[in-house]
Amino acid sequence: MIPQGISERDFARALEEFRAAVGSEWVFDSDEDMQLYRDAYSPFWGEPEERLASAAVAPATTEEVQAVMRTANRYRIPMYPISTGRNLAYGGAAPVYSGSVVLDLKRMNRVLEVDTRNASALVEPGVSYFDLYNYIQERRLDVWIDPPDPGWGSVIGNALDGGGGWTAYPFRDHFGAHCGMEIVTAEGDVVRTGMGALPNAKSWQENKWGYGPWVDGLFRQSNMGVVTKMGFWLMPRPEAYISGTAQVGETGVVALIDTLNLLENEHVINGSTQLGGGGQGWSLQIPIYGPANVIRAQLDYARSRFEAIEGCTFNETPMVRTTPPGEEPPAGVRLVNFGVPNLSTFSLLGRSAFQPNPAGGHIGFSPIIPRRGEELIKFRDFYRSNLAEISGGENLGIQGPVFMTNWERSLVGLIMFPISKNAEENRKIRVAFERWVALAAEQGWAEYRAPAAFQDLVSDTYSYNDHALRKLRERIKDAVDPNGIISAGRYGVWPKHLRDA
Amino acid sequence: MIPQGISERDFARALEEFRAAVGSEWVFDSDEDMQLYRDAYSPFWGEPEERLASAAVAPATTEEVQAVMRTANRYRIPMYPISTGRNLAYGGAAPVYSGSVVLDLKRMNRVLEVDTRNASALVEPGVSYFDLYNYIQERRLDVWIDPPDPGWGSVIGNALDGGGGWTAYPFRDHFGAHCGMEIVTAEGDVVRTGMGALPNAKSWQENKWGYGPWVDGLFRQSNMGVVTKMGFWLMPRPEAYISGTAQVGETGVVALIDTLNLLENEHVINGSTQLGGGGQGWSLQIPIYGPANVIRAQLDYARSRFEAIEGCTFNETPMVRTTPPGEEPPAGVRLVNFGVPNLSTFSLLGRSAFQPNPAGGHIGFSPIIPRRGEELIKFRDFYRSNLAEISGGENLGIQGPVFMTNWERSLVGLIMFPISKNAEENRKIRVAFERWVALAAEQGWAEYRAPAAFQDLVSDTYSYNDHALRKLRERIKDAVDPNGIISAGRYGVWPKHLRDA
Repeated sequence: MIPQGISERDFARALEEFRAAVGSEWVFDSDEDMQLYRDAYSPFWGEPEERLASAAVAPATTEEVQAVMRTANRYRIPMYPISTGRNLAYGGAAPVYSGSVVLDLKRMNRVLEVDTRNASALVEPGVSYFDLYNYIQERRLDVWIDPPDPGWGSVIGNALDGGGGWTAYPFRDHFGAHCGMEIVTAEGDVVRTGMGALPNAKSWQENKWGYGPWVDGLFRQSNMGVVTKMGFWLMPRPEAYISGTAQVGETGVVALIDTLNLLENEHVINGSTQLGGGGQGWSLQIPIYGPANVIRAQLDYARSRFEAIEGCTFNETPMVRTTPPGEEPPAGVRLVNFGVPNLSTFSLLGRSAFQPNPAGGHIGFSPIIPRRGEELIKFRDFYRSNLAEISGGENLGIQGPVFMTNWERSLVGLIMFPISKNAEENRKIRVAFERWVALAAEQGWAEYRAPAAFQDLVSDTYSYNDHALRKLRERIKDAVDPNGIISAGRYGVWPKHLRDA
Repeated sequence: MIPQGISERDFARALEEFRAAVGSEWVFDSDEDMQLYRDAYSPFWGEPEERLASAAVAPATTEEVQAVMRTANRYRIPMYPISTGRNLAYGGAAPVYSGSVVLDLKRMNRVLEVDTRNASALVEPGVSYFDLYNYIQERRLDVWIDPPDPGWGSVIGNALDGGGGWTAYPFRDHFGAHCGMEIVTAEGDVVRTGMGALPNAKSWQENKWGYGPWVDGLFRQSNMGVVTKMGFWLMPRPEAYISGTAQVGETGVVALIDTLNLLENEHVINGSTQLGGGGQGWSLQIPIYGPANVIRAQLDYARSRFEAIEGCTFNETPMVRTTPPGEEPPAGVRLVNFGVPNLSTFSLLGRSAFQPNPAGGHIGFSPIIPRRGEELIKFRDFYRSNLAEISGGENLGIQGPVFMTNWERSLVGLIMFPISKNAEENRKIRVAFERWVALAAEQGWAEYRAPAAFQDLVSDTYSYNDHALRKLRERIKDAVDPNGIISAGRYGVWPKHLRDA
């Protein structure tokens, strides 16, 4: 496979230069090797539209990334940077634009610094949550990381994709908790943001905004550069954890959400809350982290607020003391809530009321809906009354909605679409997904992230003033990546030469 | 006065079109009117280098801003948007590039929404802290705003300039606490960011990041567009406030700062702490906001941590209950700490140990230094040992350093330079300021914001990899403002046609 519009000779030369830059054992283009870069959850699996990479190159240092990008820019080779490629359900290691060369950063796996005096880390893209956790445990450092469900994922990759974890606010918003970046541009230049732009500064991981326009946001869910280092703020290990559960009847959800909003906006609840139920009633679990006496007072305050809701019952579980680094985590806890990466609750399936379906995969439709009980009910009823229509009258195994309250101030109504290895089944799912995106957008609901195959579709819904935001992003894209070689099409942003195609 | 490179005829035509767009009474170009747009704290006051505006235009709506920008873009008129123009010590209403037309947004002073169920506001640029406070009080809404010292400033202007206030984390980082923007581009297009890009969405002020690359950061301390609306997350009114003060001897500052870092990173302390002293010892005031029983437990926990420092004494002041909207604030409190905008502690002078100097003004040198006691001492000693040299052996009235811990994770070492209306005195101050910027940068210390006259100087210090960050910003600037008409030179970013001049 050769990228579209690139001559066989140029592609061969580019691969040769890649080999010279990174070592020939780190450039892959055999069919066998390229199988590893396929997206196991692709809704186009085995069909002509499946997004496939033409080759892969794995540099070990920022300098090697620069060399690779200079070559790619010269030959206009489309590149697709990945960190560890574990972004399952959102495209995995496969590119958005078929024929791209995967820039695989898994070998850049150094933890460059963990500072315990102001609780931060500086890492490379290949560092997984397991890697960072192990580094911290081995050195007995008393800070926590915030792992998402899949512990094998990249700390940087997860943050850049807009992912989140399961410990306390504000650390579980992974992009929001970052501080400082190093970026290699499409032309192979190195940029450091924030205080990293000041030579000799020791405050790169201490001050987020720096001086002047803040460019970091441009590298979120995007294709404006290759992030080769990123700083993160860490949480000092909390003394203890406590959790309570408020339960209300069917109509109590309005007051339940209003109370949740109040307590979170007051920062009395800081853990990742979980909303469950519907039908017979609703339950809300509220974890709180901090010093034992403080969280005791916080839970009591939260209880008083919830118990003021008519018909609300509130139960709590015993307080759990956390364990120092190097010791086993407390018995019986959900590990990700205690900063321990693992794979046991990897899929969203494992965490929800859905049935597991190990033979296939799932993709999620995750729209942001207003965080009010009335809107939640409206969304649920809308889903139910449209399910048959979007499914073409069949039972396609679409399931939901599950409501997620883990994002600050936001409510996500998650619907799961099964993906299989059967083209006909996948076709039906694609039709249903597309229909749902359109229906939801009419109601003012749209996703904050999307699987690679649907990134354009979702981008199209953010259409205010004739797609003014996308046009602005396209201008920026063309300016910072003039040959349009990085991650073409990612999150709906295409470079000039591919825009009209 | 006519902008450089613009013909008299074109300028007259542009002003005529401005008058047609906004009404002739809202276009100003008389000498008398333009006096009001001078920077009272300019270090070039009355000298040829003082930055002066050629005219001013004050639109009342987004549509009028669009019309004005289209005209300006056609005639290539340099524009300088201001919100209320009260950004004293950082340029006030005066442009960075002389001859610019001030785009004065003071008439856009509508509070568009205050939502109490998820505690947010949507405002226009002319809304001052007083305006927003009054809106909330009149309607008896139970949310707080976070005012900075000068209550007459613009909520949007302060946030865009990287300003902060005096209540609780995370609300006092004004740029960080925003959610969603509306921007008019140089060419007069309207862009909405985040969920605002989704027509019909009611979640514009609920989800910060939206979908795809986050562009909001580009409009911080910058010149990439004209912000015409901005959302902010508000704090639900806290039940109570408590404060303690830890005191240590001269060498105790290392443990004092480490303990502060720990407690803030644990989010046990959420108020804006104040560090004082030096010489005989150090004191740290730690305010905490929240439910009475919770902050009682938080203060006790903080006390135990501080008292573990050898030689540390800890005192607290009685808890203060906050008052509901519409009632008088508690007696005897510092109003900005209770969400009440005012002008009584307007200047930094009023808040510090410095002598007031009402005859003149001051500009601050506010570098970010690493948040460790050793670095604080190093900075203080460096200042002392270089003061005579940077002052040319004279006493210029330079004062400092005062250490500010109000920014999350950061430490600012503030030095104040007096500004007068005397050119010779100002010349000496400029020399001293420039010398200090250079000396500090060698140590890895540089400012997070700067007065208009020194924005280039400070920008030059962020020079990593041959000014790679600035080059990236320049590329973006040229892409989003092709004629380079918005706020040329702001924070060191110049448009192409003025870059080499």
